[in-house]
Amino acid sequence: MRPSGRKTHEMRPVTIETGVSRHAEGSCLIRVGETAVLCTASIDEKVPGFLKNKGHGWVTAEYGMLPRATHTRMRREAKEGQSGRTQEIQRLIGRCLRAGVDKVALGERQIVVDCDVIQADGGTRCAAITGGWVALRIAANRLLKAGLVTSDPLSAPVSAVSCGIYAGQPILDLDYPEDSEAGVDGNFVMTGGRLIEVQMAAEGATFSREEMDRLLELAADGTAALAAIQLAAVE
Amino acid sequence: MRPSGRKTHEMRPVTIETGVSRHAEGSCLIRVGETAVLCTASIDEKVPGFLKNKGHGWVTAEYGMLPRATHTRMRREAKEGQSGRTQEIQRLIGRCLRAGVDKVALGERQIVVDCDVIQADGGTRCAAITGGWVALRIAANRLLKAGLVTSDPLSAPVSAVSCGIYAGQPILDLDYPEDSEAGVDGNFVMTGGRLIEVQMAAEGATFSREEMDRLLELAADGTAALAAIQLAAVE
Amino acid sequence: MRPSGRKTHEMRPVTIETGVSRHAEGSCLIRVGETAVLCTASIDEKVPGFLKNKGHGWVTAEYGMLPRATHTRMRREAKEGQSGRTQEIQRLIGRCLRAGVDKVALGERQIVVDCDVIQADGGTRCAAITGGWVALRIAANRLLKAGLVTSDPLSAPVSAVSCGIYAGQPILDLDYPEDSEAGVDGNFVMTGGRLIEVQMAAEGATFSREEMDRLLELAADGTAALAAIQLAAVE
Amino acid sequence: MRPSGRKTHEMRPVTIETGVSRHAEGSCLIRVGETAVLCTASIDEKVPGFLKNKGHGWVTAEYGMLPRATHTRMRREAKEGQSGRTQEIQRLIGRCLRAGVDKVALGERQIVVDCDVIQADGGTRCAAITGGWVALRIAANRLLKAGLVTSDPLSAPVSAVSCGIYAGQPILDLDYPEDSEAGVDGNFVMTGGRLIEVQMAAEGATFSREEMDRLLELAADGTAALAAIQLAAVE
Amino acid sequence: MRPSGRKTHEMRPVTIETGVSRHAEGSCLIRVGETAVLCTASIDEKVPGFLKNKGHGWVTAEYGMLPRATHTRMRREAKEGQSGRTQEIQRLIGRCLRAGVDKVALGERQIVVDCDVIQADGGTRCAAITGGWVALRIAANRLLKAGLVTSDPLSAPVSAVSCGIYAGQPILDLDYPEDSEAGVDGNFVMTGGRLIEVQMAAEGATFSREEMDRLLELAADGTAALAAIQLAAVE
Amino acid sequence: MRPSGRKTHEMRPVTIETGVSRHAEGSCLIRVGETAVLCTASIDEKVPGFLKNKGHGWVTAEYGMLPRATHTRMRREAKEGQSGRTQEIQRLIGRCLRAGVDKVALGERQIVVDCDVIQADGGTRCAAITGGWVALRIAANRLLKAGLVTSDPLSAPVSAVSCGIYAGQPILDLDYPEDSEAGVDGNFVMTGGRLIEVQMAAEGATFSREEMDRLLELAADGTAALAAIQLAAVE
Repeated sequence: MRPSGRKTHEMRPVTIETGVSRHAEGSCLIRVGETAVLCTASIDEKVPGFLKNKGHGWVTAEYGMLPRATHTRMRREAKEGQSGRTQEIQRLIGRCLRAGVDKVALGERQIVVDCDVIQADGGTRCAAITGGWVALRIAANRLLKAGLVTSDPLSAPVSAVSCGIYAGQPILDLDYPEDSEAGVDGNFVMTGGRLIEVQMAAEGATFSREEMDRLLELAADGTAALAAIQLAAVE
Repeated sequence: MRPSGRKTHEMRPVTIETGVSRHAEGSCLIRVGETAVLCTASIDEKVPGFLKNKGHGWVTAEYGMLPRATHTRMRREAKEGQSGRTQEIQRLIGRCLRAGVDKVALGERQIVVDCDVIQADGGTRCAAITGGWVALRIAANRLLKAGLVTSDPLSAPVSAVSCGIYAGQPILDLDYPEDSEAGVDGNFVMTGGRLIEVQMAAEGATFSREEMDRLLELAADGTAALAAIQLAAVE
Repeated sequence: MRPSGRKTHEMRPVTIETGVSRHAEGSCLIRVGETAVLCTASIDEKVPGFLKNKGHGWVTAEYGMLPRATHTRMRREAKEGQSGRTQEIQRLIGRCLRAGVDKVALGERQIVVDCDVIQADGGTRCAAITGGWVALRIAANRLLKAGLVTSDPLSAPVSAVSCGIYAGQPILDLDYPEDSEAGVDGNFVMTGGRLIEVQMAAEGATFSREEMDRLLELAADGTAALAAIQLAAVE
Repeated sequence: MRPSGRKTHEMRPVTIETGVSRHAEGSCLIRVGETAVLCTASIDEKVPGFLKNKGHGWVTAEYGMLPRATHTRMRREAKEGQSGRTQEIQRLIGRCLRAGVDKVALGERQIVVDCDVIQADGGTRCAAITGGWVALRIAANRLLKAGLVTSDPLSAPVSAVSCGIYAGQPILDLDYPEDSEAGVDGNFVMTGGRLIEVQMAAEGATFSREEMDRLLELAADGTAALAAIQLAAVE
Repeated sequence: MRPSGRKTHEMRPVTIETGVSRHAEGSCLIRVGETAVLCTASIDEKVPGFLKNKGHGWVTAEYGMLPRATHTRMRREAKEGQSGRTQEIQRLIGRCLRAGVDKVALGERQIVVDCDVIQADGGTRCAAITGGWVALRIAANRLLKAGLVTSDPLSAPVSAVSCGIYAGQPILDLDYPEDSEAGVDGNFVMTGGRLIEVQMAAEGATFSREEMDRLLELAADGTAALAAIQLAAVE
Repeated sequence: MRPSGRKTHEMRPVTIETGVSRHAEGSCLIRVGETAVLCTASIDEKVPGFLKNKGHGWVTAEYGMLPRATHTRMRREAKEGQSGRTQEIQRLIGRCLRAGVDKVALGERQIVVDCDVIQADGGTRCAAITGGWVALRIAANRLLKAGLVTSDPLSAPVSAVSCGIYAGQPILDLDYPEDSEAGVDGNFVMTGGRLIEVQMAAEGATFSREEMDRLLELAADGTAALAAIQLAAVE
């Protein structure tokens, strides 16, 4: 039923290559099928102004897409300014990563996670969150090793998958052909079996409580599988 | 337990006054407790460029807040540009209203729904969606009456409520004091008993599947109550 | 002769409802015929940077119009940036209100007056000045009552009316149909019988010294009547 | 009484040198005391979009100031964007010049008048209007000579002077030291003995009807003197 | 003498991997030492407005840098707007690539070359030109193969190297440590042994005609070596 | 061969009038044929933030063009923002002037050189550099005379000429008709016989090493002649 021949609960192959940036304190290239996102974590020993002298740190994220990451070339955001969609995505990434961080343990410093989509085939924001956590984990390890933080500010992986209703069926991990057809789709972000964020939207359609329940199940399985891949990547 | 003394499943009083704008094709002032949003629907007999000659119409929304709608004065967005938050909210409102519109029945015209917050006390985006549908309904009635559309482009009301977890308890319709304390909160948009949009976010917290289930129940009850008020307002 | 049947020296009915904002330190909704402007005064205990440690305060104003305040919907300024016209109007409002304020008596604090047009039918900037003074008066009363200022920083009301030459006749208080036809029109701002600001412009026409004299007389009468309504509103 | 020793009704020396631009269809450099403004008129054989096929032309103006035209260097507007003040001034210049133009006689073309302040010492907007008319007159002569227009679109000169109340006295043509001290000042634009625009403002002061009358008299004399200089320059 | 131990005329190792983008009509990842630039060529079957119906095509370029491509994180240009430096670089890339294109042979279409720096260690604009030509060559081959162009619009490779004076010695291909110390440096772009562009700048220094001559020799050798690598990559 | 009848190595007449601004610390109007640029130097007793407490000063430049300096009117940059071309030019001017300044001798202050093109006929950036140095020299003299600096921060004049290949011949000092035809052209900046900056570009063409050598000779002669005129102007 799916264009790719995948089963309804089947994710695309996921690989996470770490250490891809010579300069960043943490980095990885995450591939989810044909989607590829370069994630870097940059440690900044200063917090933003509104957090000065509050005794805790901050994690924030920025998101971008190379102009030809997509099937047809998009306009460069550096020339046009960030779209509402881009701002919405980077606010989401930052919020989700912060939910998995002990900001007091991090100390008064900021980690900026940059997620740049090198190639897009659906699910870029989920790949960004999942890969972003890996970059963050590596940067936090460096702080621990250097003795700059003494208690680990991170715990279980923060993992994200997309789910949607395609051809009447709840499915996991939509690729671009599915994403552009699905009337209902969304993103689920989880950590250690608990929910961080749920964003389900129906463009020109609606969905039932039973479908919502099934999507929540698919998401729980998908994020559990991702968490294992994330942990393997940072070992 | 709630600062206002409300029960966990109790909404604030809701009133919807229609016909508040002399110029707009549809309008209402919706009050949800101390939150007040002025909603107008403006019919534009042209569709945006990307929809020309496609044989259907469009509904879009814009959202704003008067600078002193809030406890302390905010900067005026006309001077600073729309924040990411504002853009995110108006994209949500437009998406939700479109889910309740038959775009072919509407014909090649656009309706722009403006939602301007006159006074804010939590839940402004939900009030905007709920009031926005009322303004849209009135504008659609005018089109029907004038014979410009022959089949009703709208069906059941689109209604929105916020829910969250406050002091460990799932609650319905957060006011500002609750909203600023809740670690987990979100918005549910429904029509005719079916879901259009779910946006749950945990800032610095997580939530369980059981809590999610309870929030979905509260939202179903809340939106059903709102739908009755919306229908009464337009009769 | 006038579309509304009013006499040349006859103003529209004016009402001023105070206390319309739960949050603002002073507020009113002024209606001049079908024109409605919501005015709020926000006390800020800091002055702008260029006034620090000068021993006196500041009053400034901002002006906006809801997109569907007008006959046909206007573009939202938050999306497009403030037009030159908007900036010109808010500079005028601030300048006029300051002319009626003893800045030393006010002390080192700022009052920001926001004037947002809810519905437009001509004369919005004059309504904004007249209503803005009422909001300012209420905010100043609060400062006096709290003992934060000891000498009243305000004296007589600042009042504004439009005048113009319509169908060859000098008239008072133009509504939208008159405003869009008049070749010559302008605004007069007065306090205690003295002039603060005169702005007469002829778009595609000119006017004589005798006409100017008659407009000055109409304005003196009009602003005196407004001052009485302003004082009644704040009592 | 005046810092310059001038009498209350005495203008600074005014010179207008024409033909200062090799490229522009009309140009002059106007000097009013130490104030110097370069004015060019550019004929554009197209009208702006909103005037297409209306059977008449348009005149518009733009205003700028070199960064070091002033006593201390100002920020360059090309870097910062045009200030509200600049926009207000160029709207005024365009409006006043249009009041002296027969737009039907001009035909469907636009003339853009650029007024750039080379050196500032008070009264730059009045010098811009007065010099702008001269540039416009020269450009219109060229159209007449070329037979592109057959009936003269211009009549009497449009002339502008500043007036104000300085040290309690109504005075004509304020220079910078007077302008920065005067509590009340403004601009009067006239043509053929009739008024086009009156802009009187009191920053931190008020003025009486008698003072207004005296200012109107000073302005009538001043603009009459300027008109003679303008006519001499274009002969 | 050089921090890297290279000889004065020795370039860093250069590799060019083609076919790195699934979507773009031409693409490569060029590495010059630790500098890595992803280049894509996107064919657009329309030319920009100013070139319509002129009977020839266009090549343009855009340049960007990921925020953490550099030693310390830079601000994201999508948030801040393109810097003057970025605009200057992308204008240079486009100009140089066009010098190697027969625009008539290309036909009325545009090719947009995007050069995004993944990692920076000096010489990013030269790597962008060199890699950009490879992406362009691949896209042109596709047009030739598809019969959309019949005569090859490209000829010899366009190649670029940086040169500079470091510790008093003219050297080839500066890396970041050299670049940040050199008082004199610049870029040379050549094709088929002829010059396209020379940009030498001395920040806080000057250079002699003899030094200029030596830099021109180094550049001729360096670009010849690059041309061989470019041709090998596209075979 | 040249449209103007000049020989290949012949510059246009150059005049430099100093003291043209009443307010600026240094100023001149430089004319190179029909090109006219007004240059002012403004002393600012503060350095930019990034240079505080570094023990040396700074020189920067800004460049602009009046809208009708050109054959056809250009859009005003204050309305549109500075183009990439403008930013590139002002970065060049600042860089070149700084190459001729001893920043330690200047002390912790900044000199801003504004170059505004009053009339354009080719070579505006070269005229700006050449005239900008004269304005800078006069401002430095004022600092020396006032005893604010004790050692002269300037030495030999910084001079700039354009060169290009026109009709197959290397020529000196291109005017607009030559500039718009030349496939290869550029700018050479020199001081005391040494090079500061070389910018040669070929739009749709290439050039040989022999042509480059001839252009370097023409530039050396041209800048030497300019240096004499600059020195004469400041005596």
